[in-house]
Amino acid sequence: MKIGILGTGMVGNAIGTKLVQMGHQVTMGSRTAGSDAGKEWQKSTGGKGQIGTFADAAGFGEIIFDCTNGANSITALRQAGAANLRGRILIQVSNPLDFSKGMPPSLTVCNTDSLGEQIQREFPDTRVVKALNTMNCRVMVEPSLVPGDHQVIMCGNDAAAKAEVTKHLGAWFGWKPGNVIDLGDITGCRGMEMLLPLWMRLYGMYGDPTFNFQVVRGG
Amino acid sequence: MKIGILGTGMVGNAIGTKLVQMGHQVTMGSRTAGSDAGKEWQKSTGGKGQIGTFADAAGFGEIIFDCTNGANSITALRQAGAANLRGRILIQVSNPLDFSKGMPPSLTVCNTDSLGEQIQREFPDTRVVKALNTMNCRVMVEPSLVPGDHQVIMCGNDAAAKAEVTKHLGAWFGWKPGNVIDLGDITGCRGMEMLLPLWMRLYGMYGDPTFNFQVVRGG
Repeated sequence: MKIGILGTGMVGNAIGTKLVQMGHQVTMGSRTAGSDAGKEWQKSTGGKGQIGTFADAAGFGEIIFDCTNGANSITALRQAGAANLRGRILIQVSNPLDFSKGMPPSLTVCNTDSLGEQIQREFPDTRVVKALNTMNCRVMVEPSLVPGDHQVIMCGNDAAAKAEVTKHLGAWFGWKPGNVIDLGDITGCRGMEMLLPLWMRLYGMYGDPTFNFQVVRGG
Repeated sequence: MKIGILGTGMVGNAIGTKLVQMGHQVTMGSRTAGSDAGKEWQKSTGGKGQIGTFADAAGFGEIIFDCTNGANSITALRQAGAANLRGRILIQVSNPLDFSKGMPPSLTVCNTDSLGEQIQREFPDTRVVKALNTMNCRVMVEPSLVPGDHQVIMCGNDAAAKAEVTKHLGAWFGWKPGNVIDLGDITGCRGMEMLLPLWMRLYGMYGDPTFNFQVVRGG
């Protein structure tokens, strides 16, 4: 499958590397073509991964991952281009973390809106599915790093898109369908993104990002 | 033990009833003495529970639970009185939920501040411990309603107060010490309170509040 990845940071690297290892064709995009981070990733894949601009990656992918810096995601997606994103599934992974005032980061948007909603409003013809944002990138692509059952949360307005993402999360990364929580429409992004302050705090305490949340039900 | 409970809603009822059943002396406080909700609770305890104003309950308790409506918690605590709260442990359960604009509620404060922090600033001589706010009140007082391991999160500036609350959570409600997560100082309230939008969304989906979160660690 042809997959576009926007962003050359840790998250884009982890997802891109995993997908290349599985034999998919991956183009990783950044603000400028031929960025150092992009070249380094390409080298790490033995030249199998392709690199380019945000627009190159978006135009290439049958499905697109948004792994950009959350504070700049909308700018990056505009550079990717509404035409390239039209009708495509965008797996929106990034969080609106604001590190400009030091640690811990706050959110650039929350409570009555969210980054996922902003993106869906800005690109109404894109099938935005927020997913994977509530965990470290190593856990995203290898959930067995955390023992037992724990969950990946998703939301979005397009039920068919969410069903397809659920299938891919299983096939690509090993997420069991029973461990995928569908929160409903895109406004679910508020709760998903507002989990980040607790996540950051736990990470600071444990000194290790290899953990995840499980919702345990009674009754 | 003498315990004061501020608030006659579902949360105050659940905690007060459990503590009376365990043989503790409980005074439940509300805005006015002899409120209908207070009288009803007192009757439900066979007359063992006592009722009064916020100030009565705070003055009575060796330890005090804040189970007020979060949007009005600071007003209620002012009525309880700084002198009554001085030096005491305040288990701060309420969440700053704003239902004024309909469902789902938003938070009256979040991101760079929190209700728990506002209360600690307003009452600097009170030993504020935020706890139990991330679950339904039935689960608070009977964690075995949800199977297996799941956790109660707490934070606060006073380590001795948190140790005492941990002991009480075990003795009163059955929370194992290994299932108590101490997030550190009072700024941990941000993450704890910002979990509520996700909690509300899951509650809406499941139609049943009998669930809780577990942090699962790998590595």
